[in-house]
Amino acid sequence: MPYPETAEGFMIKDQKKWQEFEKKEFKLKPFEDRDVDIAIEVCGVCASDLHTINGGWGEAPMPLCVGHEVVGKAIKVGKEVKTIKVGDRVGVGAQIQADLTCNNCKADQENYCPNAVDTYGAEYKDGTLSQGGYASHIRAHEYFTFKIPENISSAIAAPMMCAGLTVYSPLVRLGAGPGKKIAIVGLGGLGHYAVLWAVALGAEVTVLSHTPAKKDDALKMGAKHFVVTNEEKWFEPLAFNFDFILNTADAMHKFNMKNYLSTLKVMGRFHTVGFGDEPIPTLMAQDFAPNGCYLGASHIGNRPEMLAMLELASKQEIKSWIEEIPISEKGCAEAVRRVSENDVKYRFVLTNFDAQFGKRS
Amino acid sequence: MPYPETAEGFMIKDQKKWQEFEKKEFKLKPFEDRDVDIAIEVCGVCASDLHTINGGWGEAPMPLCVGHEVVGKAIKVGKEVKTIKVGDRVGVGAQIQADLTCNNCKADQENYCPNAVDTYGAEYKDGTLSQGGYASHIRAHEYFTFKIPENISSAIAAPMMCAGLTVYSPLVRLGAGPGKKIAIVGLGGLGHYAVLWAVALGAEVTVLSHTPAKKDDALKMGAKHFVVTNEEKWFEPLAFNFDFILNTADAMHKFNMKNYLSTLKVMGRFHTVGFGDEPIPTLMAQDFAPNGCYLGASHIGNRPEMLAMLELASKQEIKSWIEEIPISEKGCAEAVRRVSENDVKYRFVLTNFDAQFGKRS
Repeated sequence: MPYPETAEGFMIKDQKKWQEFEKKEFKLKPFEDRDVDIAIEVCGVCASDLHTINGGWGEAPMPLCVGHEVVGKAIKVGKEVKTIKVGDRVGVGAQIQADLTCNNCKADQENYCPNAVDTYGAEYKDGTLSQGGYASHIRAHEYFTFKIPENISSAIAAPMMCAGLTVYSPLVRLGAGPGKKIAIVGLGGLGHYAVLWAVALGAEVTVLSHTPAKKDDALKMGAKHFVVTNEEKWFEPLAFNFDFILNTADAMHKFNMKNYLSTLKVMGRFHTVGFGDEPIPTLMAQDFAPNGCYLGASHIGNRPEMLAMLELASKQEIKSWIEEIPISEKGCAEAVRRVSENDVKYRFVLTNFDAQFGKRS
Repeated sequence: MPYPETAEGFMIKDQKKWQEFEKKEFKLKPFEDRDVDIAIEVCGVCASDLHTINGGWGEAPMPLCVGHEVVGKAIKVGKEVKTIKVGDRVGVGAQIQADLTCNNCKADQENYCPNAVDTYGAEYKDGTLSQGGYASHIRAHEYFTFKIPENISSAIAAPMMCAGLTVYSPLVRLGAGPGKKIAIVGLGGLGHYAVLWAVALGAEVTVLSHTPAKKDDALKMGAKHFVVTNEEKWFEPLAFNFDFILNTADAMHKFNMKNYLSTLKVMGRFHTVGFGDEPIPTLMAQDFAPNGCYLGASHIGNRPEMLAMLELASKQEIKSWIEEIPISEKGCAEAVRRVSENDVKYRFVLTNFDAQFGKRS
């Protein structure tokens, strides 16, 4: 049973062997009236893919095809689909379904829908397991499928679908813009987008990083300041300085949180989108009291934010900093291994899908 | 050297003997042009007094006179004082000085001034140790001295100066008002004010408490709902329910934080003013992700909030729920012991100062 009943993808069968990808067939969910079938052209490699397949975030259903930074061509659309036509170049991010009827969905908070379905590793109502984008095809609900602006290439667009949105959403919700001083912690896949977007939105950006070697890149991306956080007392000149901090590093468990919090203005927020495998360091309630600050997190973003982000990238011609790897069993393994070693500037995109899956449209 | 060089107060000499109050003389700071001397009439008993004298919050300078919910009569004002006249009935809370020139002060955030002086246990510039209100007199900077509205009695006003303000400030900063659903955790000294103010501001209030016996009082104070948090799955019907949670309990270390956080709307805040002796339970960054929520705290409030709170209490004739204890070595000991046992409804106020210190004006 080939497509349209199934797709083919590079899958992991065992979390203990998270570098052993194998090309296998998997079942697609039943096609519904608002679904869009996409022949995948490229797929970004997200740290979530790694945390899922290596068990860092706990057990995951196997065999599993990860990947939720998908761009490809719409090859079939359901009869009620209004926003996508066959032939459109479209993207899919980390969420592929929601009920679209609950209070959260009605308030444009579908990324917090209690019935949300993740792009991979989650169950649809009929019991089908969702499978990701290291694959020939993906079947996505129209609401979670986005037209890619013409002047953004597929490889440049792909990692925006998860990494880009994940930082764009908190940046705009927390008010990034002219007159705001923002710290971005960590300059990786997420962090590099955080700098690019925050600068594009008009904020004054400081990158906090423990890697002095990243300074040049940070400044090239538009950051105004670069602070090395393993220098002693790095935080002292920054007391009450930032409107908010957006943490993109997944090593928060190593942070001296009080030092970071001390750099926030009164009622400022330390917002994290870096989700590690370890708990946040122990905090006393009174650690938040010197400036009345907050600590929190967010989960991807909503549809209006995705559309606004793509428009911003298109208008200001913002380019993702990526490295391309042709998809294959070996290519997937190299990508996730190097992500685990933080050896990427700043996002891998798997390409050359036609060579593995043939021309599908 | 009696007043005006010194005052007399009930002091603790040793954190190991935190119930052994002794009437002693202590030095007042040098009188300056914006200072107000107050002959104290009543003083509320705050949990901070207990945490300070028993070492729960760490070492404190000794001998120490605690108490930062002071009401009395102005008996001397500096030559630059404009807001207070001799004879005025005035209150002083937990902060007695700030530089009033830094960015925080200029932004009405003087409660986060890096040069703030706490009402007791802190050093003034000249090295004098600040001493609290279980005493004959207090010398306070005009900016931290507040006229008490005529229709609020001194005993009813006193605990508003710290407990009242500490919850009033976050309530208004987080937008308590009509259409907002707010949870108040814990019905003690702070919690009872949180309910009274939030109801007065027009919010729909739910009290979360592990003590079913407090239900009647909570409803009398105006709460609409009362939820017992040691009932299993208490949080399930409350998913995505509250705009924010104001925690007033100092037992957060016993909370299952994920359960509490799950009751917040998207981007809701768990705000604590309950500062215990133990750390917050361990959290993963991803525990904040299901609703993109925040955890934070605040420290008392600013002058405009104090004035607005007193006006609200005056206009709506809101009454603190208090128990009065005549001040004495025994009275102070009974008050702090019973606070340590949570045996108070809902705030102690030390009274009858004339009997111990004479008529001072």
